[in-house]
Amino acid sequence: MSAYPPALQRLTAYFSRLPGIGKRTAERLALSCMDWPEADLQGFAESLGTLRSRIRRCSICGNLSEEEICTICRDGQRQRNVICVVEQPSQLMVLENSGCFRGLYHVLGGKLSPLSGKGPEDLRIKELRARLLEGTVAELIVATSPDVEGEATAHYLAQEFADLPVRITRIASGVPIGSDLTYADAATLSIAMGSRRTLGE
Amino acid sequence: MSAYPPALQRLTAYFSRLPGIGKRTAERLALSCMDWPEADLQGFAESLGTLRSRIRRCSICGNLSEEEICTICRDGQRQRNVICVVEQPSQLMVLENSGCFRGLYHVLGGKLSPLSGKGPEDLRIKELRARLLEGTVAELIVATSPDVEGEATAHYLAQEFADLPVRITRIASGVPIGSDLTYADAATLSIAMGSRRTLGE
Repeated sequence: MSAYPPALQRLTAYFSRLPGIGKRTAERLALSCMDWPEADLQGFAESLGTLRSRIRRCSICGNLSEEEICTICRDGQRQRNVICVVEQPSQLMVLENSGCFRGLYHVLGGKLSPLSGKGPEDLRIKELRARLLEGTVAELIVATSPDVEGEATAHYLAQEFADLPVRITRIASGVPIGSDLTYADAATLSIAMGSRRTLGE
Repeated sequence: MSAYPPALQRLTAYFSRLPGIGKRTAERLALSCMDWPEADLQGFAESLGTLRSRIRRCSICGNLSEEEICTICRDGQRQRNVICVVEQPSQLMVLENSGCFRGLYHVLGGKLSPLSGKGPEDLRIKELRARLLEGTVAELIVATSPDVEGEATAHYLAQEFADLPVRITRIASGVPIGSDLTYADAATLSIAMGSRRTLGE
């Protein structure tokens, strides 16, 4: 039983529902809010309370957006003939921050996962087909995660769109740059060996 | 530059102001809020926004409270002739949860710290004197942290209240129960040696 006032316990309970935040940390976070200037606390509250009403899914790619169409889809500078398929907006952001891709995206909203009952109809695959049918896309880069479900999703997409005149590619798997081979796992090493390339080509 | 919508970036900025929450974690927390049921998100926001107006300091001990006087000070079951002095409400709570103390508390609101410009007038020492002058308190247990500033604060309090008929005590320092002596630091060991007691007494 905590002797903190109910209002603080309530806030602690909310904080502890966030991913990776345990009861102790939640208590510390709630306590620290007591020291915030009142205006900032109100700003924080307002920001939380209006989050969902402000943010929606881009009607084209499914990315998070405050407008009907997200900034990436609206950006005239981007290559419009390549679409990179990702599972979630957070993964789109990782690619975006890396600066290695200047095309458009398509957010599936997850990956095929029979165990958690996620089938093709739960992903934004119909929407992707519609985009490909427009005929401007030459390549579809499947950047789902290199785990069992991500690979399954990639293969499913390859089959699903085999009838369309679109090149379907998959990001490479292998040992991460800058990593120590001592700690590479067997599965990654096996892929890295199998996908080896001739040096000096 | 993040490509997240401004509303999400704003929320991320608020989260990253919490102690121990870096930019990456803040982003993850903000994103996870997108998946909360709307009602819970509103509850979280309301809980944050009303925190400061709901919670104040107990007018007797300085503990956090929703009422003028906190639940501990109001509790008729507690020993009223012992006051335990702590720096912050969070430390009061640690003692309270340990169940080892059933008296009253006094929250100083910090410790003496010349470096950060915190002098006696910044702590609730006047209020403590007023409580001691009431004459019901026989012992004052100083439970400030066993660091330089906490010790200095303890010594200051002992001098400050030397004129009053109150026994002033200090919690013991030594090697923590359950710890491995291999990892004990020199300062703690030195204290533990100096405060050794005869076994079997």
